[in-house]
Amino acid sequence: MGPNKGKVICVGLGPGDPELMSVKSHRLLAAASHVAFFRKKGATGRARKIVEGLLNPDAVELPMEYPVTTEIPFTDPEYNRLLSEFYEDWAERLAEQTRNGDVIVLCEGDPFFYGSFMHLHIRLQGRAEVEVVPGITGMSGCWTATGLPITWGDDVLTIAMATLPEDELTARVANTDALVVMKVGRNLPKLKRALVAAGRMEDAWLVERGTMANQTVQKLTEAPEQVPYFSIVMVHGQGRRP
Amino acid sequence: MGPNKGKVICVGLGPGDPELMSVKSHRLLAAASHVAFFRKKGATGRARKIVEGLLNPDAVELPMEYPVTTEIPFTDPEYNRLLSEFYEDWAERLAEQTRNGDVIVLCEGDPFFYGSFMHLHIRLQGRAEVEVVPGITGMSGCWTATGLPITWGDDVLTIAMATLPEDELTARVANTDALVVMKVGRNLPKLKRALVAAGRMEDAWLVERGTMANQTVQKLTEAPEQVPYFSIVMVHGQGRRP
Repeated sequence: MGPNKGKVICVGLGPGDPELMSVKSHRLLAAASHVAFFRKKGATGRARKIVEGLLNPDAVELPMEYPVTTEIPFTDPEYNRLLSEFYEDWAERLAEQTRNGDVIVLCEGDPFFYGSFMHLHIRLQGRAEVEVVPGITGMSGCWTATGLPITWGDDVLTIAMATLPEDELTARVANTDALVVMKVGRNLPKLKRALVAAGRMEDAWLVERGTMANQTVQKLTEAPEQVPYFSIVMVHGQGRRP
Repeated sequence: MGPNKGKVICVGLGPGDPELMSVKSHRLLAAASHVAFFRKKGATGRARKIVEGLLNPDAVELPMEYPVTTEIPFTDPEYNRLLSEFYEDWAERLAEQTRNGDVIVLCEGDPFFYGSFMHLHIRLQGRAEVEVVPGITGMSGCWTATGLPITWGDDVLTIAMATLPEDELTARVANTDALVVMKVGRNLPKLKRALVAAGRMEDAWLVERGTMANQTVQKLTEAPEQVPYFSIVMVHGQGRRP
């Protein structure tokens, strides 16, 4: 294999509002000849939706369709084998593509912050040059939507997933100034119990689709029982202020 | 006082590279007639530097010069009184300005994430309409600069200030998967002791000016004894990966 002409560039797209992507991501997208993005089979893809109308009409689109759904629990070894094979296959295809030029990979939020791109990134090492363009995180979009600062002064901010065991979740909620919990969805009842046990239920907010046209912001005590996986729950810090 | 014609719009500028501000912040800046920003007396100002060359030449600039320096300890009541008066004064002046139209306030990183703007924001309530445009945080710029994801799978990420007491800092460092410590500067010796005590010194990175032309990225074990206040120390998570 000769020297590659291009590189794999993963562009962070920010929290959802297309105007919140960086000037750099916007510039790279408009000039892109090859654009790859993750999506569920049959769906448009959340990242692809954000760039609607921004791609060059001649750009070749490379939808990377997940081979598994949330129907298989992630503790199943078969889930891991399928996913690993999927990432390996796409890392190879993207590396191959760089022989002809750059290929852009779309990523919601910030690629190195709980993103799926990292599973390609680790497999691309030694195969292709990789560049990552950071983005505004989904959580930044969500706390901006609440209209309140998430942290003041020397506040400690803990970011945790609602998938954690209930006792650990309770300890995390109790032992921090400010809190962001992601991957809420069907973990909501467990998360609510943890917030109540830690005495912080009254201060918790639920934000869905922060910065998008159909965003919702509400106190968690007033939220419905069913919320999407990508909802974020947060408790704002109350630290030092002159 | 009649209805105001404009609002106070705080635009997040991101971690330092001007191309990493959002398309929205860029658009608002280019059209701005009045631009306010914090700076130390006599300095250009970090936020102002990022927008060099991007402002309308006719824009009126409003430098908000801090009345105190780090020479006064923040536990001193005089420090708080001076700062409070300063924020109160500028909140009034910005609110007054909105009678004629919008005024843009520059903010490095993300305004609601440990930003100074929140001290104006809280004082502007009921006086003027306020809008906040999120930005890429300085820490996102820094972990992107390391070329490694900060978090995987269900990792817990703790964000703490190096100004915390040593025992609390040690407990925070020990009790998390991934870690970001800000406000390092002269707290570095204390932070290093905390990292050693928690057994994480070998995994720590020091990043200065992440995404800026003169950024530095190094293992903390190889870092100099003196580092700037705005340096960030981080430990990457090692969570689940297929």
